[in-house]
Amino acid sequence: MKQYLEHAISLAEMVEGQTGVNPPVGAVVVKDGRIIGLGSHLKKGDKHAEIQAIDMAGNDNVKGATIYVSLEPCSHYGATPPCAQRIIDTGIQKVVYAARDITLPATGHKMMADHGIDVQYAPHPRAEQLYASFFTSKTTAHPIVTVKVSASMDGKQATDHHESQWITSKAVKADVFKLRHMHDAIITGNGTLTADNPSLTVRTQDGCHPARVILTQSGNVNWDATLFHDHLAPVYVYTDQPELVSPFEHVQVVQLPDTAIETVLHDLYTKGFGRVLVEAGPKLTSQFLASEFISTFILYLAPKIIGGQGKYQYFQTDGVTPLDQLNTFEIVHSEMIDTDMKLLMKRK
Amino acid sequence: MKQYLEHAISLAEMVEGQTGVNPPVGAVVVKDGRIIGLGSHLKKGDKHAEIQAIDMAGNDNVKGATIYVSLEPCSHYGATPPCAQRIIDTGIQKVVYAARDITLPATGHKMMADHGIDVQYAPHPRAEQLYASFFTSKTTAHPIVTVKVSASMDGKQATDHHESQWITSKAVKADVFKLRHMHDAIITGNGTLTADNPSLTVRTQDGCHPARVILTQSGNVNWDATLFHDHLAPVYVYTDQPELVSPFEHVQVVQLPDTAIETVLHDLYTKGFGRVLVEAGPKLTSQFLASEFISTFILYLAPKIIGGQGKYQYFQTDGVTPLDQLNTFEIVHSEMIDTDMKLLMKRK
Repeated sequence: MKQYLEHAISLAEMVEGQTGVNPPVGAVVVKDGRIIGLGSHLKKGDKHAEIQAIDMAGNDNVKGATIYVSLEPCSHYGATPPCAQRIIDTGIQKVVYAARDITLPATGHKMMADHGIDVQYAPHPRAEQLYASFFTSKTTAHPIVTVKVSASMDGKQATDHHESQWITSKAVKADVFKLRHMHDAIITGNGTLTADNPSLTVRTQDGCHPARVILTQSGNVNWDATLFHDHLAPVYVYTDQPELVSPFEHVQVVQLPDTAIETVLHDLYTKGFGRVLVEAGPKLTSQFLASEFISTFILYLAPKIIGGQGKYQYFQTDGVTPLDQLNTFEIVHSEMIDTDMKLLMKRK
Repeated sequence: MKQYLEHAISLAEMVEGQTGVNPPVGAVVVKDGRIIGLGSHLKKGDKHAEIQAIDMAGNDNVKGATIYVSLEPCSHYGATPPCAQRIIDTGIQKVVYAARDITLPATGHKMMADHGIDVQYAPHPRAEQLYASFFTSKTTAHPIVTVKVSASMDGKQATDHHESQWITSKAVKADVFKLRHMHDAIITGNGTLTADNPSLTVRTQDGCHPARVILTQSGNVNWDATLFHDHLAPVYVYTDQPELVSPFEHVQVVQLPDTAIETVLHDLYTKGFGRVLVEAGPKLTSQFLASEFISTFILYLAPKIIGGQGKYQYFQTDGVTPLDQLNTFEIVHSEMIDTDMKLLMKRK
C-alpha cells in the first residue's frame, strides 16, 4: 500500500538534519494489514531505520511481514551490519523502497532478491526530493549547502549606511531558528561577527544548536563576539593564516592552505558535517550563491525597497556572467511569514 | 443578502481599468428574491451602473425592489443626472451599498433617505480595496499608479552588460498583457525605447491597447522606435524641451515646465487617464517607486541571480533613506507564473 511507503518517507523527513553525513531514512513493518514496527535512523553510528523497525516489531513477529523503507536497504558492513542481511535473516517476505542508493557499489535489492524476497522499487517524488542533494553531497564529499538571505524586495541586506535591523519581521526570526535546527553547522564570515554580533543559535523549545563556523582570511578575528563566549555549541574558525591560534580552549582554529569555500566544505564533510547553512554578509553569501555547491536557496523578502547605490546587495560578483550561464533555481515552495515572503529554491 | 452586494462588487471589478478617471461601479436590482437587473459603469461619460441595472429591469418593475451597489449612488449632476434621483423616481424601496464616496461633497445616502428610502451602508473589504486608490487619485488629481518590474531574485533588471532578454518566462509576458489591458496608459522612458524597443501593446484576444507615454528630459527622442510607427494606440511624448516637435501627426508632444513625475501625472489625469502603468528602466522605475504616487507594485521574480556590480538594480537612489522612512508595501497576492513568482504589493 502506497500509504505505508509514504509513512516511511515521513519518518525519514522527521529526522532530516540530525543524521550528519548519513541519509535520513524511515521504515515501517506491516503484517496482516497492521503496522507492527516503525523506525528512523536517528543519528550517524546509531541503528539504521530498518533495524529500529524490526526491533520494535520483535524478531519473532516479522516472519512473513512486509517492510517499507524510504531508501534501498544497505548491503555493506559500515558502522553497523548490513540491513539487507537482517531482513533476510528475520524471514521478511517483501521489501518496498522509494529511492535507490546510487552512492553504494553493491545493491541491497539484488542481495535480498537472491534470497527469494519479493523486492519492489517504487520511486516516489518525495523520496527523490529528500535524497537528491544527499547523493550529490556524498559523491563529492561536501556537505549539503543551504544559503539563507533576508533582504528587501530590491535585493539588499542593508542600506548603504549598513542599517539592517530589522528588515524582515520577528516571525522570520522564528522560522530561521527552525532552519538552523535542521543543519549541523552555520557558516558565517568574520565581518558579520563585528557588524551584527549574532549568536546563530536556536532559541526555541527542544531546538538543537548547530556548530558555528567562522571563515577568516585576514585572521583578524573579533574574539569579543558573543558566540565565542556563550558555550552553547562548538565554534570553529577556518583560516589560511598559519599563525592564528585560538585564545579559548573550546574554540577550534582550523588552518587550511586556503579558505576557498570548496576547501572549507570538504574539511567540514570529513569532520562529519552533512548539512551546513550559510548566513553571512554579501561577500561570503555571493561566493556560495555563485558556486556549484549550493543546493537550496532560502530567501526571505520584506515588502520594502531600500535603494541607494546597493552597497549591500546580497549578490555581487566581480565579473559579469551571461544570462544563460547563471546559477538558476526552481521555486519549490513559497509562503507568507507574517508580512514577508519566504521563497525556497533548489538549484537546477 | 450579502451575496447580492458581492455580485455588485464583482460587476464593478469586471470593468476595473475601463472607466478612465471614473470609479468602476456595479449594481444589482433584486425583487421577490430574484435578480431583475444587472449593471456596470462601462465607460466614462456612459450610463452609471445603477441606471444600467434599472434600465435592464424596466422602470415598471423596479417599484418596491432593492438595489445593491458597490459604491454610494451619486447625488450630483455630472456627465449624467444623479443616480439617487433616478432611484427615488422609480420607487425603489431599499438601497444597499458597499463603499462611501468620500470624494463628493453631497451624499446620495442622505438624499435618498430623505425621500423615505431604506438606505444601508454595508462596508465590504473588497469594495474598500477597489476604491482606496481611486479616492486618493481623485482627491490629488493624479492617476492611480502601478509600477511593474521584472527582475532576478537579487533585484536586477539586466546584467551589467545590459543583457535582459529573457529574465522572466514567456508566461509572465502574457500576464503583463492582462496588466496593460487594465490600465489607460503605459509610462516609459526614452532610454527603454532605444534599449528594448518595446511595443507596449496587449497582444491577446480582445485586449485593449493602452496609450503609450514617453518621458524625455533631453528631448533627444528615438523616433525610429516601433511604437511610433505601429498606429495601435495613441502615443504621447512628455518633455521639458520647448523646441521639441513631433515628426508624426499621430504622435503628440506635450511640453511641460518640467518632467517631474508629479507634473506629468497631473497632466495625464486632466487628459482623462485614470490608471497608469510604469514599465521602465531603473531610473524612471526608481523615481516612481520612491514617490508618494505609487499605489501598486507588481514584481515578477525569476529564480535567477545576476550579481555583478548591480548597474541595473531596479531600485537605485542617490541618497540613503533610513529603514523607517522607506516606502513599505503589503504583499496582498502572490502567485507562481510558470517558473517565476509574481508578487502584488500595495503601498502602505
